[in-house]
Amino acid sequence: MTIKDVARLAGVSVSTVSRVLNKHPDVSPLIREKVLEVVKEHHFIPNSTARNLVRPRRDAVGIICLGRSNPFYPPIISQIEEMLNKAGYSMCLRFITLEEDELTYAAELERAERLQGIVFLGGRSDYTVAETAALTVPYVCCSFTNYFGDVPRERYSSVTMDDVACMHDVVGYLYERGHREIGLLLPSFPNRSISELRYRGYCGALKKLELPMREENVLFCSSFREEDGYQAVKKACQKGLNCTALVAASDMLGVAAIRAMHEEGVRVPDDCSLISIDGLNITRYTLPAITTLVQPQKTMGEESVRLLLDMIINKSDGQHLIVTPTIRQGESVQRLN
Amino acid sequence: MTIKDVARLAGVSVSTVSRVLNKHPDVSPLIREKVLEVVKEHHFIPNSTARNLVRPRRDAVGIICLGRSNPFYPPIISQIEEMLNKAGYSMCLRFITLEEDELTYAAELERAERLQGIVFLGGRSDYTVAETAALTVPYVCCSFTNYFGDVPRERYSSVTMDDVACMHDVVGYLYERGHREIGLLLPSFPNRSISELRYRGYCGALKKLELPMREENVLFCSSFREEDGYQAVKKACQKGLNCTALVAASDMLGVAAIRAMHEEGVRVPDDCSLISIDGLNITRYTLPAITTLVQPQKTMGEESVRLLLDMIINKSDGQHLIVTPTIRQGESVQRLN
Repeated sequence: MTIKDVARLAGVSVSTVSRVLNKHPDVSPLIREKVLEVVKEHHFIPNSTARNLVRPRRDAVGIICLGRSNPFYPPIISQIEEMLNKAGYSMCLRFITLEEDELTYAAELERAERLQGIVFLGGRSDYTVAETAALTVPYVCCSFTNYFGDVPRERYSSVTMDDVACMHDVVGYLYERGHREIGLLLPSFPNRSISELRYRGYCGALKKLELPMREENVLFCSSFREEDGYQAVKKACQKGLNCTALVAASDMLGVAAIRAMHEEGVRVPDDCSLISIDGLNITRYTLPAITTLVQPQKTMGEESVRLLLDMIINKSDGQHLIVTPTIRQGESVQRLN
Repeated sequence: MTIKDVARLAGVSVSTVSRVLNKHPDVSPLIREKVLEVVKEHHFIPNSTARNLVRPRRDAVGIICLGRSNPFYPPIISQIEEMLNKAGYSMCLRFITLEEDELTYAAELERAERLQGIVFLGGRSDYTVAETAALTVPYVCCSFTNYFGDVPRERYSSVTMDDVACMHDVVGYLYERGHREIGLLLPSFPNRSISELRYRGYCGALKKLELPMREENVLFCSSFREEDGYQAVKKACQKGLNCTALVAASDMLGVAAIRAMHEEGVRVPDDCSLISIDGLNITRYTLPAITTLVQPQKTMGEESVRLLLDMIINKSDGQHLIVTPTIRQGESVQRLN
């Protein structure tokens, strides 16, 4: 099916079909309708390949998503794609494993795909100027920021919640409900990351509330993977869990923690309460439903694109946006007072 | 940082650096090491932009994934990306909503990104020749096939489990454990889809086992979304659930079903057993852990790329591969005999 066939079937000239397809105003409504009917009936898609050969392809923005099966990111990605589409950019989406380095990957992708900008979904928080020198286009850190790095703040943008303050929120939520022995499950942090920020937030919150900080209440796991969280909680339960509530650094770690506690005879929330971070939809359906700190995913996606386009189009300096999470109540926190 | 800087810092010529970067054999190990040290230390990434301007970009394969937050697909996508990378193709990945039509989307993407081939992750099962005429490159249906359509089988490839036979597996599993009143939770099928195939498989299995087929045991929900499954099961429980076991058409529907039953005082598996389909990792951690039919995701990703490349490179006819799922035992099925 070519444009000539459409013209023949509609009984008009090829240039008329072309004018209709390109939405030129100088076509009578009747003719327009006739052409579109033929187009629709025969599922004709204008072949723009020839045009593409001379025109450059649409400008692309790279999205580099850390962690291949993390259900936290897809809703953000949807929002990013919609915004990019509206702005006339194409999206180049890649998932990388937790073992890969997003900066090295991004630098290669930037060149291979001639990207105009990059959004990192997850990543390290300690970029150096030397490392980022390999990137020649603007970038946005989404759901984290370059807290420990030495890159000047005007050189990149970020959209994230305050990972220190958020721990004050969740620890405070437990405190208000009478909890005084509050544990933490989170990945250890050989690379400075949001885990370190959340750990600092946890320590700060305990101190502020004058609660005891006990080494045995901090359960380190080797990654954000469910299996690693499960093993860490299982071991802790076997030694004897001394807290009345546990904060899990992500919802999926929370799900794994509940399973591990269950197997060791610790009931949630009767024997130990649990609160986690992210706000995944699945936490509404698990038994018990999990009380969680919900990150505003839609806003995070929208704002990441807005800040990136501002840098690409207006050559503006980087901007740093702090989004506000909210706690969604489930069934996993018991009131002790 | 340019290649000239690297040459200067390593004390060699630009052409030597170039030979090292392009992995030419005619460089002494000592010189090679020296150059790579400088490259590493200064995070130098070869700038191939100039080369890209004259060379065409890498051939791209499109991956169109239906359902933005379906955790079933990411592990398949990882496998596809790895295989495409090895074969020297770049991947153009897009998520579309359940409301969008993958064929229309694919035809536009094919032209916009000049794709060499397409893998559909999820889709309708009733493509017509007229509809697919808009696609001018080979494509593979992964996790479904064009069961109800009229497209000749040699024109496309598919990698899927047998959606009819798989229902015989799960219904048979329940039957062997003494269940005789077996219900089904699945999306209704205005568009012919795997839901219809699974429904047929369910009816066929009941018939073969001489079990009663009762209308009230089939719980239709409006989509694969958790919320819709939850509502359907909730309503059914309120009317009175008459089955001893329920088959959920996906793991996420299974999670939602367990929650709905729990709220209505139906305990899984004590009052009603549950088995679902997909084999998501999360089903190992839910309470109860869910017995599920595991689809071989890694194989499905690998084989999809293999069949697609065979069509692209060797101009071979479409091939149709049936993969074999296996049941992973959880805690959600009770033995009644």
